[in-house]
Amino acid sequence: MLHIFPGDTVRTWTVDAGGVDSKGVRRSLGGNPETGPFYIEGAFPGDTLVVKLNRLRLNRDSAVSGDRIEPSALSPGYIQSTKYDDKFDSNWVLDREKGIARLKQPSERLKNYTVKLQPMLGCIAVAPPGHQAFRTGFLGSYGGNMDYNQIREGTTVYLPVSAPGALLFVGDGHAAQGDGELTGDALETSMQVEFTVNLIKGKSTRNPRAENDDYLMSLGIANSLPEAVQAATTDLANWLQRDYKLEPNEAAIVLGTAIQYNIAEVVDPLVHVVAKISKETLAKLK
Amino acid sequence: MLHIFPGDTVRTWTVDAGGVDSKGVRRSLGGNPETGPFYIEGAFPGDTLVVKLNRLRLNRDSAVSGDRIEPSALSPGYIQSTKYDDKFDSNWVLDREKGIARLKQPSERLKNYTVKLQPMLGCIAVAPPGHQAFRTGFLGSYGGNMDYNQIREGTTVYLPVSAPGALLFVGDGHAAQGDGELTGDALETSMQVEFTVNLIKGKSTRNPRAENDDYLMSLGIANSLPEAVQAATTDLANWLQRDYKLEPNEAAIVLGTAIQYNIAEVVDPLVHVVAKISKETLAKLK
Amino acid sequence: MLHIFPGDTVRTWTVDAGGVDSKGVRRSLGGNPETGPFYIEGAFPGDTLVVKLNRLRLNRDSAVSGDRIEPSALSPGYIQSTKYDDKFDSNWVLDREKGIARLKQPSERLKNYTVKLQPMLGCIAVAPPGHQAFRTGFLGSYGGNMDYNQIREGTTVYLPVSAPGALLFVGDGHAAQGDGELTGDALETSMQVEFTVNLIKGKSTRNPRAENDDYLMSLGIANSLPEAVQAATTDLANWLQRDYKLEPNEAAIVLGTAIQYNIAEVVDPLVHVVAKISKETLAKLK
Amino acid sequence: MLHIFPGDTVRTWTVDAGGVDSKGVRRSLGGNPETGPFYIEGAFPGDTLVVKLNRLRLNRDSAVSGDRIEPSALSPGYIQSTKYDDKFDSNWVLDREKGIARLKQPSERLKNYTVKLQPMLGCIAVAPPGHQAFRTGFLGSYGGNMDYNQIREGTTVYLPVSAPGALLFVGDGHAAQGDGELTGDALETSMQVEFTVNLIKGKSTRNPRAENDDYLMSLGIANSLPEAVQAATTDLANWLQRDYKLEPNEAAIVLGTAIQYNIAEVVDPLVHVVAKISKETLAKLK
Repeated sequence: MLHIFPGDTVRTWTVDAGGVDSKGVRRSLGGNPETGPFYIEGAFPGDTLVVKLNRLRLNRDSAVSGDRIEPSALSPGYIQSTKYDDKFDSNWVLDREKGIARLKQPSERLKNYTVKLQPMLGCIAVAPPGHQAFRTGFLGSYGGNMDYNQIREGTTVYLPVSAPGALLFVGDGHAAQGDGELTGDALETSMQVEFTVNLIKGKSTRNPRAENDDYLMSLGIANSLPEAVQAATTDLANWLQRDYKLEPNEAAIVLGTAIQYNIAEVVDPLVHVVAKISKETLAKLK
Repeated sequence: MLHIFPGDTVRTWTVDAGGVDSKGVRRSLGGNPETGPFYIEGAFPGDTLVVKLNRLRLNRDSAVSGDRIEPSALSPGYIQSTKYDDKFDSNWVLDREKGIARLKQPSERLKNYTVKLQPMLGCIAVAPPGHQAFRTGFLGSYGGNMDYNQIREGTTVYLPVSAPGALLFVGDGHAAQGDGELTGDALETSMQVEFTVNLIKGKSTRNPRAENDDYLMSLGIANSLPEAVQAATTDLANWLQRDYKLEPNEAAIVLGTAIQYNIAEVVDPLVHVVAKISKETLAKLK
Repeated sequence: MLHIFPGDTVRTWTVDAGGVDSKGVRRSLGGNPETGPFYIEGAFPGDTLVVKLNRLRLNRDSAVSGDRIEPSALSPGYIQSTKYDDKFDSNWVLDREKGIARLKQPSERLKNYTVKLQPMLGCIAVAPPGHQAFRTGFLGSYGGNMDYNQIREGTTVYLPVSAPGALLFVGDGHAAQGDGELTGDALETSMQVEFTVNLIKGKSTRNPRAENDDYLMSLGIANSLPEAVQAATTDLANWLQRDYKLEPNEAAIVLGTAIQYNIAEVVDPLVHVVAKISKETLAKLK
Repeated sequence: MLHIFPGDTVRTWTVDAGGVDSKGVRRSLGGNPETGPFYIEGAFPGDTLVVKLNRLRLNRDSAVSGDRIEPSALSPGYIQSTKYDDKFDSNWVLDREKGIARLKQPSERLKNYTVKLQPMLGCIAVAPPGHQAFRTGFLGSYGGNMDYNQIREGTTVYLPVSAPGALLFVGDGHAAQGDGELTGDALETSMQVEFTVNLIKGKSTRNPRAENDDYLMSLGIANSLPEAVQAATTDLANWLQRDYKLEPNEAAIVLGTAIQYNIAEVVDPLVHVVAKISKETLAKLK
């Protein structure tokens, strides 16, 4: 376990969701193996861990994805009638120079199909509350397998600390991913990661948040989509009321006119809806 | 009932959700009064009505919105603890020259708060199937009170025809609206509307779709958010498979890497999630 | 339209869900054709219509049911892997003397399978609010296709009146049905029906209720099961607080120890959960 | 850790959910402290642990319950408008001779209110899969805080083994409980417990099941009520198809006419719906 201090910058790397590194060497079992834990000196329950993702760079030329839509995102009729091809090849070539991914052995119709590389971290977590231990496919108030495609280079993630040292983990890099991680596996690959940690002492929300140059983001993780919408909306309302000193009606006016939702994750053990508000909007609050 | 023909362009106007027109005159009872029906000659069940919104322009300088977040989008704890101010004034001034809205009597913190004007139609509908009659706050396979903020000038809406003549209605204009119509009422106002109708004969999806310069959009309207995600995702997969000749695995690859979701509506009798794919992505399909 | 008066008893009959009567004669189109409307003199919006089902008797020896579980009640994996036999015969013989139903052409394993006859009304409705018109497969605050297997002979149903005369309908008799109407169609058959109507003037709940010798029942009809549980529980709490003068904590104590839930309907356009409390429990309230 | 063998009978006791034993002595922290683990010799992943509850007896004269309905089971309007009395006393006297519970300091309206004693175990669990560790308020495929009021004396519980020795825990005894554990805490008390363990080698369902003299019960534990209904229904269909050799249509016929649902738990981190079928019905299968 690496001990680091608030203000420290860490350069490290992650293996892919299957445990394979940048050289193609299997370094661990599959299932979202993580890099960490990092013990942040001075972090205690009730604090918030601040993780700025300075750099998130691909370090190899291959990825693999799922090739079927998860049934939880489909109507029963589609599930009943659809026949998939078991031999479909969903290996990808990552062309880092051009900034695109393409299928390694594309089917006829996907010969010209390319995806813009937008590396993201599927997993970023601290130790869960109450000494619990979850598999790394899980997500919750402690972060985890959140699979939100805006957790990219330049994004800052806020996580509520539940154990001394916070015990930060990162992993499950995706070269690119649509909303919801619809095929269960995005373009799974290994990565170089550089982040800087900081602490907000004695203040903690019960859920993760994120921030980038353009948005404040409340990450609503819950059992079902309606509950995830409720969690994200409520957190964003509270954020405006506490940090921007808005009254409830004022928060309603701002969110009613300016809230945006992203559906981050529909296929994991819990679902994830993000409520966000632009900094351009916030600049108009006196 | 106005009879029009495929290819016709109609210039008309809508009153606001409360029934008030551009002069401030009450023209009908409130609750999303509609303009129409327009009987499209030659439209029969099994066809698709195509409505291109050529112009959607504000025609007065005032709007009124809700000032409380709908409880269905909030956690029980927030509902229990929040006290709203009954005297909050949520009347808006629409400055059409500058293209912004501002509160008429803003509270201190919202003195500088402005919202970009982005006029949209809350309601666009044909007659529902099976001779049913729903209130205009309702939505469904026939369209209705969909409250999606991308149903704007330049957008084309596709609606499945269930009755001879289709019986097109439009109404419930919003000067601007965040995702989900979170306060129940957006910036409700009257509008000038110009649209062109066309028919796709003998082809019909069971749900509404939309299209603009940038996106194909499957409008998933359902009882609950999980079902709305399923409806929207399934329709978009079917769209790719039928019109772009993709096999199921190929559709999964494309959606897994490029789908985007919008949460259009969380507060109405049914909820509305949009699954969309960019035309830039579609251009890469051979 | 038959005009009747509060206190009147009506003897009538219903065709089956496919429109066939006791003689095997098709009397209407299928899809839950109804008997009615009955115009109850003196019934006005804001009143409650009270319908006591005095007699509900089978009047023929045949029924037909569904033979597949509705996919909405099954996990995706089961849907994907299950192959049904298209030639399965789900016609039933109703042995009214012995009080049992058995398959007409039973498969080997179901040779001895019998079901106790417990006739119930799938549909009982008044006109919906707001001049709306729904198909008879629909259900809602006005009753409708509630498919609750306790709406039997001896049960009293309470329906909120929304139109002058209430406009009572009955139909969709089932000879027997498990919880949830899992196969979409129960043992659909025709019936003799005798009921007595009464009015509670100037009092109305927003949802249907029922009562028999043993239970008070709050019928929670909603878009999703969580909302149906909320509707049913809330109505039963309000019932105890208003009619039994309990304070909120007292209602919580009684419901926490004595509430029972039934899942009445999982396969219709809306779902239906019943919250009930025994009269034995109520007798202990001072 | 006590090592026991298949066929062994264990007599033990549980403290209440707050950690207090039959003498009123606090023996552990609160939050559903458990008795165990019991290491069952010969139990391995892939087996099913069979736990017959021979005796479940109250061993003291007091219990305490919640006195507010959990907001997740209530409509937002009720939550907003309801004022609870903070000083309400929800301590109970357990009269084991008469077999009833009554409030210790009843309010006027609840002076005569009694509840029949029907002791049950809120928690019965084996170690979760994948070396995970959950708080004892959690539930899942491994059992846990299932809070089903039919897990009583005479009931047999089947749990899928995920760790060598199974690691059986019991706890969270309730003197009585309505459906759904609506007040969050039922009549929490300590108990004497006697159970006999057995193993079904090399066979395992992915979810818990139960059985008593009258019913087979599939315990559907999931994130949301619709998913819990799906899990329970699917498991019961599979149970009939595998152990009673029914074809899918036959299973549909039997479940369509005879399934019963219980809503076991609506207030915990996951929800719990039971699908059950009577042994009287099963006796009619050839």
